[in-house]
Amino acid sequence: MINFEESALNFLRQNIRDIPDFPKPGIIFKDITPLLKNPDTLNLTSRLLAKPFLNKNVDLIVGLESRGFLFGTTLAMDLHAGFVPIRKPNKLPGETVSATYQLEYGTDSVEIHADSIIKGNRVVIHDDLIATGGTASAATKLVEKLGGEVIGYSFILELTFLGGMKNLKEGALINTLLKY
Amino acid sequence: MINFEESALNFLRQNIRDIPDFPKPGIIFKDITPLLKNPDTLNLTSRLLAKPFLNKNVDLIVGLESRGFLFGTTLAMDLHAGFVPIRKPNKLPGETVSATYQLEYGTDSVEIHADSIIKGNRVVIHDDLIATGGTASAATKLVEKLGGEVIGYSFILELTFLGGMKNLKEGALINTLLKY
Repeated sequence: MINFEESALNFLRQNIRDIPDFPKPGIIFKDITPLLKNPDTLNLTSRLLAKPFLNKNVDLIVGLESRGFLFGTTLAMDLHAGFVPIRKPNKLPGETVSATYQLEYGTDSVEIHADSIIKGNRVVIHDDLIATGGTASAATKLVEKLGGEVIGYSFILELTFLGGMKNLKEGALINTLLKY
Repeated sequence: MINFEESALNFLRQNIRDIPDFPKPGIIFKDITPLLKNPDTLNLTSRLLAKPFLNKNVDLIVGLESRGFLFGTTLAMDLHAGFVPIRKPNKLPGETVSATYQLEYGTDSVEIHADSIIKGNRVVIHDDLIATGGTASAATKLVEKLGGEVIGYSFILELTFLGGMKNLKEGALINTLLKY
C-alpha cells in the first residue's frame, strides 16, 4: 500500500534530473528545473512544502538567493506569510546586516535588510537544497540578529551524507521533501 | 471615482521604496522588498500580474534571474503554467543556448536550458522591472530560438523614460503594473 503523499513524492522525484560533473567534475548535480517546468509538479511541490506549516502562524518565509526565491514566494503565498530575501553581498539596496559562513576553501557571506523582520516574527527559512547547512546556519544567525524566531526550515532536497541537519536550530520543524 | 484596480495599484505603489544612490551615485533604485514582506501586497501583486493572461492558454512563464524568479513562479501557479528560468552564464546545469545583449559599456549574456521549451509553447516573459529592455529582448530571442511563441510580457515596474517597450516583440500583450 502506498499513500497519497508517498506517491506524490515519487512523482516529484521522477522530475529531478541528475547532471553529472556540474558544477565541477565528480559532482552529480540534482536539477529541479524539470519540476518547475511541469505545472502539476510545480503546484504539488509548493503544496507539499507548505503542508507541515499550515496553522503554525508563520509570519515570514526567508528565502536564499537565488533558487530559494523560486518556491520561497509560492510557499509564502500558500501560508499567507510575507517573503524576505537573503542575498549575496551588495545586492540588497537598503541597510543590511550580514553573516559569514565557511566554504570548503575560504568563506562567503550573505545579507538581509536590517528592517525586514520585526522582533518576535515567526520565520521559516527556505532553500531548494540543504547540503552542509552552511548557508542555512548563516540565515538562522541573520534572522535571530534581527529578533526573529526561526520556527522551521523548508527544503526540496537534502544531501544526507553531508550532515547539514546538525547545523540547523534545535527544536525547529524541518520539512525536506526528498532525501538523497 | 476610483475603481478597484486603481486603488489596488495605489496600494502596491505605497509599498515600493526609493533607495537613492543604488547601485551607483545618482540612481534612485525602486525597491520591491516591502511589497514582498507584506502578505497582502505579495498576493495582490501576483494576482494583478496574472489577470490579463487568464484564459490566454499560457504554457510557460520564463523568468529572469534573480528578481524575476520571485513572482515568476507565483504567476506560473496562478495561470497553471510551468516555469522556466533564464540565468546568467554557467549557472544552469544542463545543455543551454545563450543570447548576448548590450550594456551601457560592453555586453552581457543570458542562458536557457536547450530542452526547456517545446515548439509552439505559448510563453510569457517575466521580470520585476523593465528598463532599457535589453534582457527582455535577449529572453525573447532565446524563447524563439527554441521554437516558443512569446505571447506576452509581465513586469511589476517600468522606467518609461528608458524606452524599453520598443525592444519587445510587436503584438505581444504587455502587462506592467506601475510606471515611473
